Order: sequence, then structure tokens, then C-alpha cells
Amino acid sequence: MTEITLLNKHKLFNGEQRRYQHYSHFNHCNMTFSIYLPSRALQGYALPVIYCLAGLTCTDENFSIKSGAQRFAAEWGIVLVMPDTSPRGAEVANADSYSLGQGAGFYLNATQQPWAQHYQMYDYVVTELPELIEKHFPVTSQRSLCGHSMGGHGALMIALKNPQRYLTASAFAPIAHPMNSAWGKEAFSTYLGNNQAEWAAYDSTELIQLYPPSLPILIDQGSVDEFYPEQLHPQDFIVAAKSKGANIRYHLREHYDHSYYFVSTFIESHISFHAEAFGL
Amino acid sequence: MTEITLLNKHKLFNGEQRRYQHYSHFNHCNMTFSIYLPSRALQGYALPVIYCLAGLTCTDENFSIKSGAQRFAAEWGIVLVMPDTSPRGAEVANADSYSLGQGAGFYLNATQQPWAQHYQMYDYVVTELPELIEKHFPVTSQRSLCGHSMGGHGALMIALKNPQRYLTASAFAPIAHPMNSAWGKEAFSTYLGNNQAEWAAYDSTELIQLYPPSLPILIDQGSVDEFYPEQLHPQDFIVAAKSKGANIRYHLREHYDHSYYFVSTFIESHISFHAEAFGL
Repeated sequence: MTEITLLNKHKLFNGEQRRYQHYSHFNHCNMTFSIYLPSRALQGYALPVIYCLAGLTCTDENFSIKSGAQRFAAEWGIVLVMPDTSPRGAEVANADSYSLGQGAGFYLNATQQPWAQHYQMYDYVVTELPELIEKHFPVTSQRSLCGHSMGGHGALMIALKNPQRYLTASAFAPIAHPMNSAWGKEAFSTYLGNNQAEWAAYDSTELIQLYPPSLPILIDQGSVDEFYPEQLHPQDFIVAAKSKGANIRYHLREHYDHSYYFVSTFIESHISFHAEAFGL
Repeated sequence: MTEITLLNKHKLFNGEQRRYQHYSHFNHCNMTFSIYLPSRALQGYALPVIYCLAGLTCTDENFSIKSGAQRFAAEWGIVLVMPDTSPRGAEVANADSYSLGQGAGFYLNATQQPWAQHYQMYDYVVTELPELIEKHFPVTSQRSLCGHSMGGHGALMIALKNPQRYLTASAFAPIAHPMNSAWGKEAFSTYLGNNQAEWAAYDSTELIQLYPPSLPILIDQGSVDEFYPEQLHPQDFIVAAKSKGANIRYHLREHYDHSYYFVSTFIESHISFHAEAFGL
């Protein structure tokens, strides 16, 4: 009856990087997540949490291994949670495309078959995983979201839909207007069907016009990111956000691309941004 | 007649992470290396270089992606060069073991067939690659070595054999006494044959007794590293080094393991150690 099973752990910046598996009642399959616990959490002190959402093709390990975030989480005393990007397993529907199916859950609740059976990543990330984290680890109810690419879409979209649950959201190269991108159209039509009103419920640029957020948002975008012109459209989100008076900081970073090298360069400023909102 | 071919580049900490391919005249095959150039190098200022040697199964990318070293190389103004760990290719001899053949060159010059044809990693790392780097990039003749596991063996061994070429050496969890480890015995007998006098020429614990170094050496070792008791034997090296009055700093890090999470925790101190020797 173990609810979460430890797969491995590594001491890191005087804290611990751990990987767990558990059964997800929303996704109807086993899910894996990683968590970074600073030393103070290991001593039992409750700390705030940043949920770190990864992009297409990623697992919980990409952000864990490549972002360098733990150095700053250790300094500030913040727990990091890295979820997987989709349900996984032989019994879980999949697609031949890297931008659909396993590794490409888009942080939404699918309504179309065969996807609806397992692809309930919105409920998983917003409800089920935080309940597990808050039950098993010393964390406060202070939560924020950070994401990269598809995970940037997830971070912005989830924060806009749940401003009472999150203090801040930050994104690297987010798919900020998925209804205006080939990736988003493919995913939304496949997972949600053809009713574009349902798509808009997961589109940050649409959402921010309906629910102008009070929470601060930070976005970094690389200027030579190959996906910037066609897939990401952060400028659509920024224009919509500014028209609603939202609290947005946006940086277009000259000559940076879409990789984790870009993320690792600016992760310190994102962790500091969340730390400030946590009152650290 | 391009001597080195750029495979890709990424802006990183205001400098560039690049990956190159070139033909190696020692290894008789194409080799790949990665290099991190801080912004001042991109502006043409000559900077010192740390050669970063990776461990078993690694390529030039493991240290590049996982160590977090570039943040501190950028701060100090140091070029990092990440070589591959062996010759590669369909025409290059290989073995079924992860600790032999491609990915396991042990930074030596093989004398036994079929290995001798391509496995000339000692000459490659000591001579050929620095010549290429010093020809194509703005670097000074200040060089140092840093390595992890098999790469820690390489860093210590190469520095001890070439104290005039390197200012410092540092190692994470080095195979510090390969003649006393299963990995080392397997590699040395396969690549060098059965004459143990030839093995000793590549064994840091043997070398330091013959050539007590004046250059400073830094070693970090995790206390729960699964390879520490049987394969690494840093204590053999430390005892030999101290008996010769060598300038060694050794840290046994409680509860750290063999992974790059351990490396990334202490990489800042290693880069600072080299920076001090460079006079930065």
C-alpha cells in the first residue's frame, strides 16, 4: 500500500534529488516524477514549491539534469517538483509524431478517444500531484509554476486558470498561443476535438483576455529560437496581457536558442523571481 | 581542407557552447569535441583552458550538459574543452563491455591489436587536441585538467606525466590506482598487454611516487559512491602523494555518490581552484 515508491536519490547541493513512481488515479497508469529537496526540507522545515513543467519529448529528467535550477533552489530554500510530460506505458495511446502522444500531453484533459482514458495531465498537475507532494513532503501551500516550451504553455495556462493556487508563473520560450501554432492545433484537435471553444480554455493568450491575472508572470524568449516565429508567439500573449494591465516581465534574449543551454543561463533569475513572490 | 567542422553552437552564459568534428591523425578516425568560449574569447581575448575529461560510457556531451561548469567558466573567463572518451566509428575496434572499447579509451596509447590502430587517446588529448585548440581559438598556453572517474584518472595521470604542460589538475571520483581496480586491470591488459611496467606508466598512484608533482592537485570523492571501495582507491593515491610531499587537497564528501549531481555540486570549487592557478 505504498502510495509513492522511491526509485533513486542523489545528494545534490547538500539536499537530495529523488525520483518517485506512483499510480495516478486521473491518468490510470503509473507516473514518475522527480523532486529536489533542499537540506532544510530534509530537516523537516516546510518550504514553498515550484512545479517545473518540461517540453515536448521530455520526461521528469530533462529539467532535473539540464536546467541547473537546484543550485538556486538550495540557496533560497525552495522545493522543486518535476512531473513527467504525459502518461506513459504500453497500454497508453501513442502517436508517431514527437509532438503528440507520450511525451506530449500538453497539460490538458483529453476528451477524445483513445486519449481521454489516460491523458488527464491538467488534473494530474493541478490536483493529484500537489496533493501527493503536500502529503508526503515538508512543503507549504505556497506554489508556483515554471515551464519550458510546451511546459511554458502549461505554466502560464495553469496559473491563469488557478490564480488562487499559485503565487507566480514563469516560462522559457512558451507555446504562448497554441491555437496559433501547428503544434497546438494538432494537439488540441486530437485531444479535444474540433470545438474551438474547448481549445480556448487551454490557450494562454485567450485566457489572459478573460482572466487578467494579478499574479506576476516572467517570460524569457531566445531571439534565434527556431520555434519562436512559428510555434511560440509570446508576442501575442504579451500584447494581450499588456492590454489587460497584467503584471508581465518579458525578455527577448539576443542570440539565445530553444535549448536547455538557454534555460540554464536564465534559471537563476527565474528562481529568484519565484523566491521574491514567496517572501524569501 | 577545413581542419575542424562546426556541428552546432548554442549561446550560453553570454558565451558559446560549440561542438566540432575533425579528423584525428593519431586516432585515425573522426573525433568530436565540445568547447565553451566565454564572451571575452568571442571578442578575441586569449583565455586559459581547462581540458575536461569524462568517464566510462560518456561522450563530449556529458560534462557539457550535466556539470554546470560553464557558469563559472563564464564568470572567470576560462575556456573549457570537452574531448570524447575514445575513438569512434564502425571501423574502430569495440567490445561488449561498457568499460572497454568505444567510450572507454582510458586516455592511453594502446600497443595491442586490434586496439593500437585507433586507441591513441593519450597523444590525442596531450598533443593533437591542444594543438588544434591553440590554432583555432583565442587561448593562452595556460592549460589545466579536470576529470570525472575514468576522466579523473586521465587528468591526474596526464598532469603527472607532463608537469611542464599543465598548471593544475583536479578530479572527481578518479580511478586513482587503476592497477588496483578491475576496470583498470581489464583495460590495461587489453590495451597494453601483460607487461605491468607498461601499466605503471599510466597509473597515477605509481607515477606520483616516481614524479612527485609541484603542481597543485584537487580531488573530491563521494562517500557513498558505489565504485569508491573497489574501483577508485583515491586513498592509495593520497597516501602515496603525501609520502612524497605533494600539494594535494582531498575532500571526502559525505553521502555524495558517483553521479554528475555530485560533480555539479562541487564544480564551482574546481573551476575556482584552476582559476587561482591561472592567476585570475
